Amino acid sequence: MYKMNEKIESMYCIKCGEKYTVGDYFLGCPKCLEKGENAAISFQYKEAIFKNPSMKGMQKYGRILPYETFPTLGEGDTPVVKLEKMAKLLGVKEIFIKNEFQNPTGSHKDRMSPLVVARALELGKKGIVAASSGNAGISIAAYAANAGLDCKITSLPNVNMAYKTAIEATGAELVIVDEADDIAANGRWGYMRKMVEEYDWYPATNYILPAVGSNCFGVQGYKTIAYEIYEEFGDNLPEYIFVPVSRGDLLWGIFEGFKELLKLGYIVALPKLVCVEPFRRISKVLEGEDYRKEFPGECSLTASIGGSTVTYQSYVAIRDSNGFAVDIPQGNVIDDVRQMAHLGLYLETSSAVVFSALKRAIEKRILDKNCRILIIGTSNGFKNKPELF
Amino acid sequence: MYKMNEKIESMYCIKCGEKYTVGDYFLGCPKCLEKGENAAISFQYKEAIFKNPSMKGMQKYGRILPYETFPTLGEGDTPVVKLEKMAKLLGVKEIFIKNEFQNPTGSHKDRMSPLVVARALELGKKGIVAASSGNAGISIAAYAANAGLDCKITSLPNVNMAYKTAIEATGAELVIVDEADDIAANGRWGYMRKMVEEYDWYPATNYILPAVGSNCFGVQGYKTIAYEIYEEFGDNLPEYIFVPVSRGDLLWGIFEGFKELLKLGYIVALPKLVCVEPFRRISKVLEGEDYRKEFPGECSLTASIGGSTVTYQSYVAIRDSNGFAVDIPQGNVIDDVRQMAHLGLYLETSSAVVFSALKRAIEKRILDKNCRILIIGTSNGFKNKPELF
Repeated sequence: MYKMNEKIESMYCIKCGEKYTVGDYFLGCPKCLEKGENAAISFQYKEAIFKNPSMKGMQKYGRILPYETFPTLGEGDTPVVKLEKMAKLLGVKEIFIKNEFQNPTGSHKDRMSPLVVARALELGKKGIVAASSGNAGISIAAYAANAGLDCKITSLPNVNMAYKTAIEATGAELVIVDEADDIAANGRWGYMRKMVEEYDWYPATNYILPAVGSNCFGVQGYKTIAYEIYEEFGDNLPEYIFVPVSRGDLLWGIFEGFKELLKLGYIVALPKLVCVEPFRRISKVLEGEDYRKEFPGECSLTASIGGSTVTYQSYVAIRDSNGFAVDIPQGNVIDDVRQMAHLGLYLETSSAVVFSALKRAIEKRILDKNCRILIIGTSNGFKNKPELF
Repeated sequence: MYKMNEKIESMYCIKCGEKYTVGDYFLGCPKCLEKGENAAISFQYKEAIFKNPSMKGMQKYGRILPYETFPTLGEGDTPVVKLEKMAKLLGVKEIFIKNEFQNPTGSHKDRMSPLVVARALELGKKGIVAASSGNAGISIAAYAANAGLDCKITSLPNVNMAYKTAIEATGAELVIVDEADDIAANGRWGYMRKMVEEYDWYPATNYILPAVGSNCFGVQGYKTIAYEIYEEFGDNLPEYIFVPVSRGDLLWGIFEGFKELLKLGYIVALPKLVCVEPFRRISKVLEGEDYRKEFPGECSLTASIGGSTVTYQSYVAIRDSNGFAVDIPQGNVIDDVRQMAHLGLYLETSSAVVFSALKRAIEKRILDKNCRILIIGTSNGFKNKPELF
């Protein structure tokens, strides 16, 4: 059985700062929720020790995660690769990629799943439920199967065959809903809410509108990407980190990891976090629009960063790191996959668009070409629909 | 530019022991070839230092590889995961998996490609040619693209769409041949031979019958799996290592890595290497049949370990490690993928059949249940044909 980390001091709202005792806040901060200002909850830890060198992969950082140990499939400790050809091609000083697609189920989501599973096991839950267009689904399904938990993944009819096959192979049930309106009773989030509130299943992902983000125990796992980047570069961090973003769990986790490193004195400044999105969504929020709005837009070729919602966590991570957002139209997507593959990196569409994002940021002169850039390679290209190529 | 490791003492034939100066022996040992006893050539090194702790991934072991440094995409250093549920299910003491599918293109082949590419670059070759049903193809294509080399992959008409898309995305040419007879002029190996002998392309894989195995520079890369297993377990190695096998490049590399560790005094005994094959092929050779024969059999669901040939290298690795071979009929394949996925591991068919192989070895009482077993998880399940599920 897995026991909660005793070094957690409290939980806190990332918007109003209210402190809470440790618990599950599936709908985010209760106080903000009451005001209709939905925002995520996160964790504060007592101790400043962030590494246990005797452990491997993500568990090396267990002391600053909600669970020090958790069921593992070999997640974390992904390589950082220098992309000299790409830097030359784009006229940038240095570009690196962190190969998150080298996690057990081929995406960064494998840093979230073990913590969600550890929590579900500690609470004695029967099963885990998640809404996903793919990567979160296969990751949660695999970790749930490994832990002996039941699993239901709800998705839309356009779900990729590669994901469908992978999810169902684990024994998880794939629940396809027709309703595009997620929070409708027969939508994905409506289904999740019912499974959580009526059947006591444990939720891995967001199911409220305005969205707050995924399960906060799971999101903590993404902090380990920041720790690993620090271990790679020391305090000579890349100035920019490009992150494909939907509701910003990954972005927030990386941000919070660096914030902790800053607080502990390991680094002197945060890298600028750059959000890559399929259409202007968080871009509009950064210009002053309300983050609680819906932002419709075309994103069918990049379902992993799709959706019409943004989150407060994305906004804070970009704003407080002095980052920015770049939107990449669907017309670039297939060419981006080819461009990255021509550099040796076969990525999922939603990950490959970082190529266009970099080009666009350079063209718009919002990126200093004399800088060092790290891109997060979130997911592998074997998940792409072959018929698009 | 990449320079050959100066610590190479000589090359030698794994069958007759003849020593050779360093060079490319695409058709294996010239002396054995003359007698029609085709066998692979390998490397001997001068020094006993096998690790450079300041390097990462596969380059950590560059001192005992043909090239100390080589173009990297982040290969090697894959996790070992303990499979407690699987051990309980099968009634075995301990089972571990080494997640080779967490390499950059999702298979163990990424340990071969960087060394082949380094060699092609040093020789100033224009491009690399390989015959592959998938994993070698996408790996070589990605590493060639990364290095700026042209690439041609020749395959059969039944090539998986997932592979086809991945290979072509890199800019490599996929050459589909109709001819099932590989060495025919219009077969895969005939095509390769022409590209090598007439157009001076560099070959990554075997193109001779009887087969000798892939490019010997590349095969050296698989030794690093043995080194990493040693680093994980010390001299308390698992007694058995289960390896999916076609022409035994992976099997031989692991074997040779352990042999070096034995010679250097790091370990006191070799783990027993168990070959998993789709039908009785090397099994027959172990019973006395000539390794140079053709062994036809059905293997369409497990193309990555398919083919009607065996190699002398497979035979030696099994014989000298006191291992054995297990054949798994095609009828088990899809269920094996599901069984492994139910344990959290979504594997390619050719990798998942290790599940049945273990069961069968236990049933036949050729495996001591009170032993510790390591399986090599060669490739991820996203490469499976969804229509089979």
